[in-house]
This record gives sequence, structure tokens and C-alpha cells, in this order.
Amino acid sequence: MAQKTTKKMITVGEYLLMRLQEMGIEHLFGVPGDYNLGFLDQVMACKKIKWVGNCNELNGSYAADGYARIHGSAALLTTFGVGELSAINGIAGSYAEHLAVINIVGVPSGELCRTHALMHHSLGTGRLEVFSDIYRDVTAAQAWLKAETAGKEIDRLLTTAWHLRRPVYIALPTDVSYAAIPLPEKPLDLTPPPSPASKLEKPLRQIYEKLQKAKRPVILLDAGIQRFGMAPLVQQFIEKTGIPFASMSMGKAILDEDHPLFLGLYGGKLSDPDVQACVENSDLVLEFGTIMCDFNTGDFTAHLTEKNSIEIHADQVRVGKTLYQKTRGGDLLKALLEKGYRYSGSLPSRASAVSKVAAPTDKKITHDRFWPQILGIIQPGAVVIAEVGSSLFGLLPLRFPKGVTFINQSLWASIGYTLGALLGVCLSAPEPQKILFIGDGSFQLTAQEISTLLREKCRPLIFVINNDGYTIERCIRGAEASYNDVQPWKYAELPRIFGDDVWTSRVVTETELAQALKEYPKDRLCLIEVKMEKLDMPPLLRTLGSDVAKLNHYQK
Amino acid sequence: MAQKTTKKMITVGEYLLMRLQEMGIEHLFGVPGDYNLGFLDQVMACKKIKWVGNCNELNGSYAADGYARIHGSAALLTTFGVGELSAINGIAGSYAEHLAVINIVGVPSGELCRTHALMHHSLGTGRLEVFSDIYRDVTAAQAWLKAETAGKEIDRLLTTAWHLRRPVYIALPTDVSYAAIPLPEKPLDLTPPPSPASKLEKPLRQIYEKLQKAKRPVILLDAGIQRFGMAPLVQQFIEKTGIPFASMSMGKAILDEDHPLFLGLYGGKLSDPDVQACVENSDLVLEFGTIMCDFNTGDFTAHLTEKNSIEIHADQVRVGKTLYQKTRGGDLLKALLEKGYRYSGSLPSRASAVSKVAAPTDKKITHDRFWPQILGIIQPGAVVIAEVGSSLFGLLPLRFPKGVTFINQSLWASIGYTLGALLGVCLSAPEPQKILFIGDGSFQLTAQEISTLLREKCRPLIFVINNDGYTIERCIRGAEASYNDVQPWKYAELPRIFGDDVWTSRVVTETELAQALKEYPKDRLCLIEVKMEKLDMPPLLRTLGSDVAKLNHYQK
Repeated sequence: MAQKTTKKMITVGEYLLMRLQEMGIEHLFGVPGDYNLGFLDQVMACKKIKWVGNCNELNGSYAADGYARIHGSAALLTTFGVGELSAINGIAGSYAEHLAVINIVGVPSGELCRTHALMHHSLGTGRLEVFSDIYRDVTAAQAWLKAETAGKEIDRLLTTAWHLRRPVYIALPTDVSYAAIPLPEKPLDLTPPPSPASKLEKPLRQIYEKLQKAKRPVILLDAGIQRFGMAPLVQQFIEKTGIPFASMSMGKAILDEDHPLFLGLYGGKLSDPDVQACVENSDLVLEFGTIMCDFNTGDFTAHLTEKNSIEIHADQVRVGKTLYQKTRGGDLLKALLEKGYRYSGSLPSRASAVSKVAAPTDKKITHDRFWPQILGIIQPGAVVIAEVGSSLFGLLPLRFPKGVTFINQSLWASIGYTLGALLGVCLSAPEPQKILFIGDGSFQLTAQEISTLLREKCRPLIFVINNDGYTIERCIRGAEASYNDVQPWKYAELPRIFGDDVWTSRVVTETELAQALKEYPKDRLCLIEVKMEKLDMPPLLRTLGSDVAKLNHYQK
Repeated sequence: MAQKTTKKMITVGEYLLMRLQEMGIEHLFGVPGDYNLGFLDQVMACKKIKWVGNCNELNGSYAADGYARIHGSAALLTTFGVGELSAINGIAGSYAEHLAVINIVGVPSGELCRTHALMHHSLGTGRLEVFSDIYRDVTAAQAWLKAETAGKEIDRLLTTAWHLRRPVYIALPTDVSYAAIPLPEKPLDLTPPPSPASKLEKPLRQIYEKLQKAKRPVILLDAGIQRFGMAPLVQQFIEKTGIPFASMSMGKAILDEDHPLFLGLYGGKLSDPDVQACVENSDLVLEFGTIMCDFNTGDFTAHLTEKNSIEIHADQVRVGKTLYQKTRGGDLLKALLEKGYRYSGSLPSRASAVSKVAAPTDKKITHDRFWPQILGIIQPGAVVIAEVGSSLFGLLPLRFPKGVTFINQSLWASIGYTLGALLGVCLSAPEPQKILFIGDGSFQLTAQEISTLLREKCRPLIFVINNDGYTIERCIRGAEASYNDVQPWKYAELPRIFGDDVWTSRVVTETELAQALKEYPKDRLCLIEVKMEKLDMPPLLRTLGSDVAKLNHYQK
């Protein structure tokens, strides 16, 4: 153990910060609270990690999630009880959607825990460990740090988070933060253990045989590939093998959508018909990092048979009915590449996609005209973030320019998520253009985080689609029900409450929108409120909504 | 069982709503989500329970907590996974502080659970019950409703919530909500089981003997009395026995502060010296519903010996070292009253308290002058809500007029809580005057709930104390640290974003404040932003902060 043999000492707080840096983390999100102020002083003294104080903990957890989507990992700091529980929705989302978020919680000292002190922020029962127990269900590993084992535990947690791309929970007691422990000799080793040859051989042979027999092989890309950093390898695989690929919606734009082998989006009945036929009639679908949840599969209408499909994930592989655990998808792909397979059949026809900007008229903005108009401003390399709702289902049919990163949270699907995530994206993505699309109902949950965007001098372009309420709910049930209404805010006037360096606009007609898209400055935060009709929605959302209603046994 | 013998049928959703009404609940807080829309239609059809849609679930849970503080119980509705986890901080607060909040969560149908479907809002692991497991630690009872047992389970949960004054968790599957079950024959029986005579006899005799021997008995009142509706009985006890009483800060103003037997506030070293001497030198302290947590006891400086004190709680009694469980404090007090004890010794001197309004000057507003000035507008019967921070510790020394209800969350102490709670208070308290005091840092966490206050046509008076950040943290650690800063908002301009029927003012000097206090209209929501210096704070807060720093092992 490095920390036993070296003589130089370091505090536990400094050790943790050093390891976070070694993971590439440069920002720490969260909210101060009296149990984390000591560690915060250590953060301030650490020049390489910048503290980013959020307006509240939930927003902080969303920011960390967004940061990890770009940066690979992220860290969040909250305080005992109240702070950590406020963040748990965001952390659970990172668990569901495979993001390595290091969730650090400042907790009371060992002495207060041992004496079961009735501390503020506790349940008053004397059991102070109850919240870390709660986190067992939504994090991959947990530790309540003690000085004697802190270094080892921190290393265990950080590598677990990285290998599984899941959040981990670190309880940092106020007294332990300043305890001295040995400086480690080596930097944190994040290399995942390679697949044992014995685990690779059989699936490799099976897959290679299937490939050789296949007449119409297709690759299906999804979010797992992005999370585990496998996109470059997958692109190499596609280009060397010549197998055409489709993307699931959670995996949209992981590879360029103008790639000659790209077919279009697949999501069961929500697919383009051509793409659906091509995938479902394929005799070998290579699923890469697929997440077969309802919103990603057109409410379970993605019909891929076990027999005709293979799943390749970062840490396991399925061939037919056989699941090969501890077989790393990356190792398998590399080995497959060495075999030199090349698809020589004809290419299926490419799905038509919305790709032309419509000329604006003086009519009120509608979804069918809005999204094509929007396409005109999305630049190559942009980061586009879509709230799950009208925004996601409006953006899905667009074919993005080269290098666009597309962020959506379709499995966890927590409304309001994207505004918090936008902060993390702005602080981690070097690309100049970051665009968020969010509906009014979702916006209201996390609206104050515009304050932190301004504080951190972020310059995103935010579209608030104001259609008087929760449209995704309306299309499931209660189209006209008042419970789906929200209070009408003056959205375009809100950013100025939080800071002066903003530009905003409210648009009702297509020409007004066109004007705003022409005028908006690139040097500050911009918000465009787009007024739309209450029951207007993208066709994909309408289809999905009626399916969700059926799954929920709702009768119209 | 009533539901087996009757023949009339009712849906599970209607049954639940009927039972909530029988508890006296007239409002349901929360956020719609696709797993609760079916139940929401049942809510809309129920004319006696009004749906109050919050901006987000955390704010909803705070509103329910505030409602329960006035009304005795409350109900919250969220959706599976994302919604329920966002509310868990508020529900945990209700657990800590003894509020009967019925936490209803719309969850997927039985079929989706049995098939481990990869639904949106799930962790993607197929285990859909994980969130109800998480709630075990912060609710007194839980049930995942099935049609066959729904009636019985609903009754069990609601009575548990009421008897323990703790939140309970009800998972209502989309399909179960519309299942038909028998109409119950009798209304919900919320009467707690009386103390068995055997449980009452011994503590009664012991306490009566101690009372007769006591030379300087004192009663110490705290929040438990208010939560369990025991204030009228306690007042009767005080007046019949003539024993003087002090209040802890969580129990401030449970009985009128102009009562001739009221001594003042007790909180260890944070007490008035006279009150501290009187309580700590007493040879018999009757503790009524005390919660001995750090903020309530001057950081554990309340020195009450087991020998000299007796604890009387709603459901248990302690005499010396002996804890009598299942002995109801109310039954004991009634039995004691029948014995006819009367204290005949002299009364200790009454603590001096801030009770005069200071004449305003042109100087900048400071804490030492602000709170006395504020006292002038607090009317008899007002509900005053104090965020834990400068607001709480500024208000504690004031002696309130008759009938004031004082709300603070000193054990859970979640910042931002009070703005959400204010909504619940406004909808449950018939009194015309509701006043909230909240700092800028806390305000930022939950600020959007002003929107719901406006939507529900509430007319509170809100003071935002703008002192550039988290002052309660500054006095613990990092007085000048940037992590305790917040983005400077235009607080007084915010309400107008959410609605037009508001009145706001920003004041810097005492005369400006006096003018605002004279002018503010009573017929709409009013917000006064009070600018104060960053490091100015009430003396009680300064003392507490340095103690918290010591408990956390922070060196200055």
C-alpha cells in the first residue's frame, strides 16, 4: 500500500482533492453547509479545483451530472441530512444513466456519531448514519471516511465510480477532513482490468461466425458507448467493417449524423419507417451500449429478437441467450477488428430527416415549423441539450451537423434536469455553442440556476418553450386538466433578476423568431421565450403519450 | 372489518380521498407526473380536497409540512422515482419535527413491477420498489397498495401518521387507483388508545410526590406539545397549578407570551440569564414535549439533571431514570389536575424582553434596531415564520402579542424550507396576518414558490434579509470566504415575474423601512427586501455559530 510506505503526510481533504484532480475533475458543485465548511476551506486552497456554489443541492446534482456527461466524471459537495437528501434525485439519475459522480457529503464528527448527539440536520433519533444508508440504493459504493483507512477508501470509491460509471457516496466527517495521512506514491490507476483471455475467446468466435453468416448486419448505437468513452473505437469498427448503423434516441449524435453509414434513428414505432424496417429485418443487430427503456424503444415496440441480436456493453457481452460477464466490449471490438471482417452487401437506403431550414412566415410558431427553423442556427460542434418532453421529441427528427453533442435524460427523465445540467455542460465543454431547449413546466422547477450560469459567466442560448404547462403530461392524460397548467411567468424577464449581462426575447411568430435568431449576441447568456399553443406538440410525443397512457391503464 | 360487510363500492383513489377528508385535510400539494395523473383526475372530481400544484416537489413537501403545523396533518402527491426523491428532504424534515404528512406517490402498475419493466423514472435495474424502500428510513409506515388490502392499509397508515405525528408513505399504482373496494361503514377512528391504568398509576404517584416536595418547580414548554395538540390542556394545567413556565425556542409562543406565569425563553446559554438561573436552579423542571437538539439547547448547554427533571411527552413519560412507555402525557396531566395540586411559592422575576418599538432614524438598518422595529407590525393572532438563521435568532428575543403562532424548523433546519412552508401556512391558517422572515441565501433555494403563493392568491408579508450570503455559515466558518457568498439578485423585482398582484419594496435605512411598514397593502402578496451588512447578525446567532464551529472541530 503506497500510503503505508511513504513518509510525507497530507490531510484527508487534500488527498481527496488530489485524487479528484487525477480523475480530471476541475470543478466541484454544491452548496455550503456547516458540516462541509472545513473541507470547503481546503477546496479554496486547492488552486486546481474551482468551487461552484449552486442555488440549491438538486440543481447542483444536475450540474454534476451534466459535467460528467462531457468530462467523464464530476464531483458534488453537500452537507449532512438536508443537503444530501435534496440532491438524491439528481444522484439517482446519474446512477440510472451511468455517470461517474463523486457525491461528497460533509457529516458530523466521529464523536458526535458515537454519542448519538441530537444534531441539527438529523432525524432526532440519534442515528446519524441513516442518510448514508439511504444512499446505498442509488450509488455503486459508499464509505464513511475514517482517518486510518481514508486513502484506501477514497481510491476504492473513485475507481468504482469510474469503472461502473455510477455515482459513489463519500461521507467526510468534519474532523477527518483535517486528519493527516500518508501521501500516496502513485497517481490513481483508473485502468479497468482487461478481459481475461478465457472470457473473450468464446464470444469472439461466436460473434465472428455470426458476422460472416449475416446478410444484413446493422449496428445499433446507444448511450452506453458514450458513457464509457467507446465512441472513437466504435467509429473505427464501423468504418473498418463497413456495417451501417442506426442510433437510439439516448445515443443520438454519438457519431456524426452525416456519416455515410448512418441510417437514422431507431426507436421501435417511433423510428423512421425505413430505419425500423432495416433494423427489425436485419439478421444480425449488433447492439452497442443499448438501454432498452420505454422512452428509448417507442414504449417497448423495439422488436429485436435474442437470436438475431448481440449486445456489446462496456463490461459485458450477450450472444444469443448467453451473457458473458467480465468481458469488456472494448477488448472484444479490438479483437474483432483484428480479424479483419468487412461487410460487402448493399447499403440500406438512408432515412430522410429534417435537414432544411424553413423560410419564416408571419404565422404563430408551431412545432412542425419551429424545429426545422431551429436547425439553421445549430453549428458544427455545438452541444444541444433537450429536456425530455416537447424539446426532445422535437429535436430527435433533426439531422445535426458534424460534431454535435446531444444530451438528453430519457431513462431517468426528471423534469427540470436540463437547466441544472446546462451549468455543468457550460463549465466542461470547450465548444462555444451550448443550446438548451426546455418547456415552461420543467423550467419552473430549477429556474434559479440561471443565477449560477450568470455567476460563472456562462453564455448558453436557452429556449423556453412556453405552452402553458406540462405538455408531456397533457398528451398522456388530462389534456385540458387544470393540474397540467402552470402559473404564467414572464420568462424572458427572469434572467435580469439574477444579473445584468443577459439578452432575452419573447417571440410569438416565425418572423419574430427568425429576427431573434439573427440578433442574439454570442457574448452573453441569452434566453428566448417561444410562445406556442397549449396542445401543439411534436408528432413523436403525441404517439409516445398515448402509449404511456395505455401502459398506465389510463382510459381516455 | 367494515369493508367486508358493506356492499357499496368505491375506488381506492376515492377511498383515500375520503379518509384524507376525515383527517381534516382540504388541500393536496405536489407536482403532476404520468404515474399520478389517474389519481389526479379523482382528486379533481373530489370537491372537498383542492389540488395545489407546486413549482417542484421539494417545495411541495415543505408546503405540506407547513400546512400540517397549523392543520394537524397534510398530504403530498408526487410521481414515482424522480418526484418522490425530490421531496424526500422535506418528508425527512417532517419525520424529524413530528408532522403527520401523508406522502402519496403514483407508481407503475402491478404488471410493470412484476415484469421488472425498464420504465422511465426507474434506475434501469428492473427493481421498481427501490424508492419505497428508501422511504423506510424517513417515514413511520409504508404500503404499496393492492386492491385487496388497500382500505385496511390506508387506514393503518393514516392512523399511524396521526398517532405518531410522523409522515407515512403510500405507493398508489396507476391501476390500483381505479380498483373498486367496499365503502367503509365507519369514519376513520383517530382516537389514540388511552393509557392503561397500570401504566399511569406509578408515574402519577411519583410526579405528584415530587410536586409536593418541590420548592421551585418550573414548566418547560416545547414543540412536542404543539404537535400533539396538547397546548390547551397544558395551559389549563399551568393555570390550575400556578407553576411558572419557560419556553424552548422550538416551542416559542405555543402559549401566549404575555401570560402572567411566562418567564421567558430557555435555551441553555442562549437564554435570558434570569430564565436560565430560574430553570437550572429549579428543584423540579416539568419538561413538556421537549426536543433537546443542539440549536434548541444553546448547543447542549441546557443543563437539566435527570434527577431534577421530568419529561412528559404525548406518548411517554420519564421520571428520574425511568421511562414509562405507552403512558400518554395528556392522560397523565388530566389525572394530575384531578389531584388538585397548587404551587404556593413566590414567582421568579420575569425576564426582560424586547417589547418596545424603536423610533426609526436615517441610519442603515442593523439587526439590533431592525427586530424591535419589526415588533410594531406583528398583530395579535399573526403567524410568524422564521428561517433558521438570522431570522430565527433575531426573532427569538421578541415578546410576541397574544395568540401569535411561531413557526421554525430548528432541528431539521433545512435552508429554504420556510418559503415552501409559507404556502402551506397561508392555505391552512385562518388568521389574516402571515409574516415570513428569510435570508437571501435561503431564499434562493426555493424562490420560485412565490409563484404558487400568487397562483393561490395568498397575501403574506415576506421579508428577505439581504446580507450577501449565508450568514449562519459565516458565523460558523468562513466569515469572508467566497463560498458563503451568493449571486446578488434583485429580490424586490422577482415577485412581479410570477404575477402582477404584488407589492414590493427595497429598504436600506430605518426610515425607509418604517415607511414600507406603514405603506404595505394588506390585500396582496408583499415582499420587502431589507439590505443589511454582511457581517451584522443577531447576538444569539453569533454565540451559537462559535459553538457549532467547536462541535465541528473547526479552528478559527
